[in-house]
Amino acid sequence: MPTQKSASSEHELVFLPLGGSDEIGMNLNLFGYGPPEDRAWIMVDLGVTFGDERTPGIDLIMPDPEYILEYADNLVGLVLTHGHEDHIGAVAHLWPEIGCPIYATPFTAELVKGKFRDIGWIEEPPINVIPLGARFDLGPFNIELITLTHSIPEPNGLAIRTPAGMILHTGDWKIDPDPLIGECTDEVRLKELGDEGVRAMICDSTNVFSPGVAGSEADVRTHLLEVVKSVPNRVVITCFASNVTRVETVGRIALETGRDLCLIGRSMHRMVGAAKEVGLLKDFPPIVPEEEAGYVPRDKIVYLCTGSQGEQRAALARIASESHPHIALDPEDAVIFSSRVIPGNEVLIYELQNQLTERGVKVITAEDHFVHVSGHPCRDELAQMYQWVRPQIAVPVHGEARHLREHADLAKSLQIPEAVVPSNGTMVRLHPGPAEIIDECPNGRLYLDGNVLTTSDHLRERRKLSFAGLVNVALVMDEDGRLLASPMTKARGVPDLDQDEESWLAELEDWVEEAVGRVPKKIARDDEQVELAVRRTVRRFLSEAWGKRPLIDVSILRA
Amino acid sequence: MPTQKSASSEHELVFLPLGGSDEIGMNLNLFGYGPPEDRAWIMVDLGVTFGDERTPGIDLIMPDPEYILEYADNLVGLVLTHGHEDHIGAVAHLWPEIGCPIYATPFTAELVKGKFRDIGWIEEPPINVIPLGARFDLGPFNIELITLTHSIPEPNGLAIRTPAGMILHTGDWKIDPDPLIGECTDEVRLKELGDEGVRAMICDSTNVFSPGVAGSEADVRTHLLEVVKSVPNRVVITCFASNVTRVETVGRIALETGRDLCLIGRSMHRMVGAAKEVGLLKDFPPIVPEEEAGYVPRDKIVYLCTGSQGEQRAALARIASESHPHIALDPEDAVIFSSRVIPGNEVLIYELQNQLTERGVKVITAEDHFVHVSGHPCRDELAQMYQWVRPQIAVPVHGEARHLREHADLAKSLQIPEAVVPSNGTMVRLHPGPAEIIDECPNGRLYLDGNVLTTSDHLRERRKLSFAGLVNVALVMDEDGRLLASPMTKARGVPDLDQDEESWLAELEDWVEEAVGRVPKKIARDDEQVELAVRRTVRRFLSEAWGKRPLIDVSILRA
Repeated sequence: MPTQKSASSEHELVFLPLGGSDEIGMNLNLFGYGPPEDRAWIMVDLGVTFGDERTPGIDLIMPDPEYILEYADNLVGLVLTHGHEDHIGAVAHLWPEIGCPIYATPFTAELVKGKFRDIGWIEEPPINVIPLGARFDLGPFNIELITLTHSIPEPNGLAIRTPAGMILHTGDWKIDPDPLIGECTDEVRLKELGDEGVRAMICDSTNVFSPGVAGSEADVRTHLLEVVKSVPNRVVITCFASNVTRVETVGRIALETGRDLCLIGRSMHRMVGAAKEVGLLKDFPPIVPEEEAGYVPRDKIVYLCTGSQGEQRAALARIASESHPHIALDPEDAVIFSSRVIPGNEVLIYELQNQLTERGVKVITAEDHFVHVSGHPCRDELAQMYQWVRPQIAVPVHGEARHLREHADLAKSLQIPEAVVPSNGTMVRLHPGPAEIIDECPNGRLYLDGNVLTTSDHLRERRKLSFAGLVNVALVMDEDGRLLASPMTKARGVPDLDQDEESWLAELEDWVEEAVGRVPKKIARDDEQVELAVRRTVRRFLSEAWGKRPLIDVSILRA
Repeated sequence: MPTQKSASSEHELVFLPLGGSDEIGMNLNLFGYGPPEDRAWIMVDLGVTFGDERTPGIDLIMPDPEYILEYADNLVGLVLTHGHEDHIGAVAHLWPEIGCPIYATPFTAELVKGKFRDIGWIEEPPINVIPLGARFDLGPFNIELITLTHSIPEPNGLAIRTPAGMILHTGDWKIDPDPLIGECTDEVRLKELGDEGVRAMICDSTNVFSPGVAGSEADVRTHLLEVVKSVPNRVVITCFASNVTRVETVGRIALETGRDLCLIGRSMHRMVGAAKEVGLLKDFPPIVPEEEAGYVPRDKIVYLCTGSQGEQRAALARIASESHPHIALDPEDAVIFSSRVIPGNEVLIYELQNQLTERGVKVITAEDHFVHVSGHPCRDELAQMYQWVRPQIAVPVHGEARHLREHADLAKSLQIPEAVVPSNGTMVRLHPGPAEIIDECPNGRLYLDGNVLTTSDHLRERRKLSFAGLVNVALVMDEDGRLLASPMTKARGVPDLDQDEESWLAELEDWVEEAVGRVPKKIARDDEQVELAVRRTVRRFLSEAWGKRPLIDVSILRA
């Protein structure tokens, strides 16, 4: 008996998020089972997030998989819960390094394949397509897909069985009593898991501050139809393209109101294509090409388009700024935002809504009409899930620190015995013993900058450039430090500092020339010393003339 | 009679906002009376707004007064309604150019004087201090201050009487039934104005999308006391320093709960000083210096600090990041945000709240507790004001386009005969004839960049720098275009593009050297031609290696 106990204590069950447990929102979750020195691992989801003002010039950010690459031989599979960007967006970028088998249900697989094609992958991407409700082994892990509801087709929770107990990883979910596409949340199976005994539930925290329930897509369909009926002229509806149910809703509304349907935006077309590919959107109306939609009478058309978050290159922003080649709106047309405002996007979204309002277009949002429901569980749904599953341990994920903390408090109030709040890089031991954080693992972010995956050092430099620009001074000297030509200055991002008639750059060149002339001959052979003198002069000049410190580069050529 | 009619039609009454009727929110309102070629003007308010990611490196933005400077001789006065930054923040910066008399009530005047001192003004600033309720003439305008309530002491509406009728300019207001500091909204006088006949009401639109009423500072005092009583350890409260009532509330709570009060943040000290200077905050408790507050027991101290909007240099951000020299928080301490989230600040505020949460500090906000009320009128208050004042014309201001449009619709629903939605630069004729926009006037923004007031061209360059950085190539050639040294490249904000062992900058220098060598001799004497060849090469190199286009500068020295 003692032997067995010791053996079992050597085999640990651990959870390690490298993304998704912070404010950034790209998911990369790891589950490990085995002795510390030789664990088997599975990865659940591998998503991206989008850059913002803190990462200028960056479109995509993804979790740095550095830690798990060290154990790549022990990584038995990557399982994708559903097809949202924050769960699948990094797969094509990082898979070449990771190299383990990928498992996804048909719709998710279809989207991931598209991403591989996007970055120039020619062979068939290495994805194992598994059916909803599938159950399969990956090393010591037995995985069962549990059907849930969310804001995209095929959202799956994962029941992960190991010799040390079962984990339910919910992924993203809500309890939609009438999801319109796909089955309802599998309440029966969730209760059965609860009866079987769930060691830990890793659970979505997005809406933990919202009381009540998220609401149903069926109700959105009813209300959105009423809103569209009330609009006398053109209707533009914007929503996330991945919400195929919402897309179908707009199709139904078009049929019911006798309007033609026109899709605008690349991802809208792509998502509709992927949905049809796997047998969804069967009764979808025919789609009017955008270059023909302008000939349809104003009261006989509904546009469904991308750009609900104010993205400046998306369809809606181009329509609002009158730069769309085919679509123009007039007063008394209406734009319906069937979407929420993602924090951080307020300024862009309101700018867009103001542009539309200024042109007399009616703007209808979820603030004033019931035209959107969230895809994530509110407090009553979380309570319901905890009642069904009754885990020993609650592990809140998918949220900022304040969400995870609130979620842990909620779980405790629901009599869940243990709650652990992870953050990215914290290894949580779920078995044996009480749940606790046992390690801090390397975790970071990779930035897709142009076509280069990179860490962030140069972004700090870009932020500095955006704060105060740059001044470059080019000098040519002989070996003894005599200037062979006048210095040349270039400034970028610096305001016009001319006073009276004189050009400030010419004046700065005079200052530099004088400063270089004062450098003692014996150190003027040393580029570093000359550079120091020039920097000091430029800094002094700009501190007087401008009061700011730009980046300064000095290019010293010796001829 | 015909003569008189013709004379009256020549004298127009116009309203011209140069700021405040857009999403930017800095106020500059002009009222003109007289014949078009020789109008007398008054200016109401002259505020700033703060920079955001669209204006990197800019702290303050103010309206460009260019248009009114052309008529500076006819500008008879600047009247300030109240002391918020978006109404007074540009006065000290722009007054030297504008030069007309300034009128303000005591507290507002105190704040403006501080701003003049801040920028190094030594003489007594040119402000006429007028009492609440004052009535005085400025050229053809007779101005009467109407006492209102808001979130700062001494908010005044302006009844502006002219031979062409009376305008009520509300400034910022709400109807606080128990404002604690200052008088209630002067309902009696507002009704009397209505009886006298108000031609046009220029009115605050901030909360037009919010139903009901804004609520009272007295209720905040009651609830905030309860919240503080529930906290066992340190309490930090953050609010806008200019909300002197809220500051007084925290003082009262300190007294009532037996806690010492410590103020943190420069503007908190300054605002308390200004309030005391004009006789407010009479029963305020003694203030513990921040360097001594650490010695007070955890359950006997309340801190009141700046930084409710997540401002990175403000007191609260420094406390949250553990970089404040005197204040450190521990688990079970609490931070109360007695404030709202100003759109655009979400990311910074949530980051701050996450930092605090991660350290076990309890974060309490207006989302979950009644610890804040807005200073602007909600829909029921707007309706009440229209019932009192009964203007012929509604002119919504102080909001984004979508707010102004909604406000105009609300006014129409309240049977106001006319409504005109202005935007910055639109001249609205209020008399004679129906209200209408009769002109578009120059209007723009000035940016305080370092110590330079400037327009925005170089900001576009800074945004480009933040997107893709900059590469500088320095060359030295003789007059015939022969390179006298190897080219030198400097890159900023570009990721590491090294492949294998080679430095990418060295490789780029090779490319440039080769490209310059290929320039035909007869055009190599022409700097522009050489620059063109170098640019093309650098662009090609980076498009392959990086997929992005940084700014490129070429410094050609001829020796």
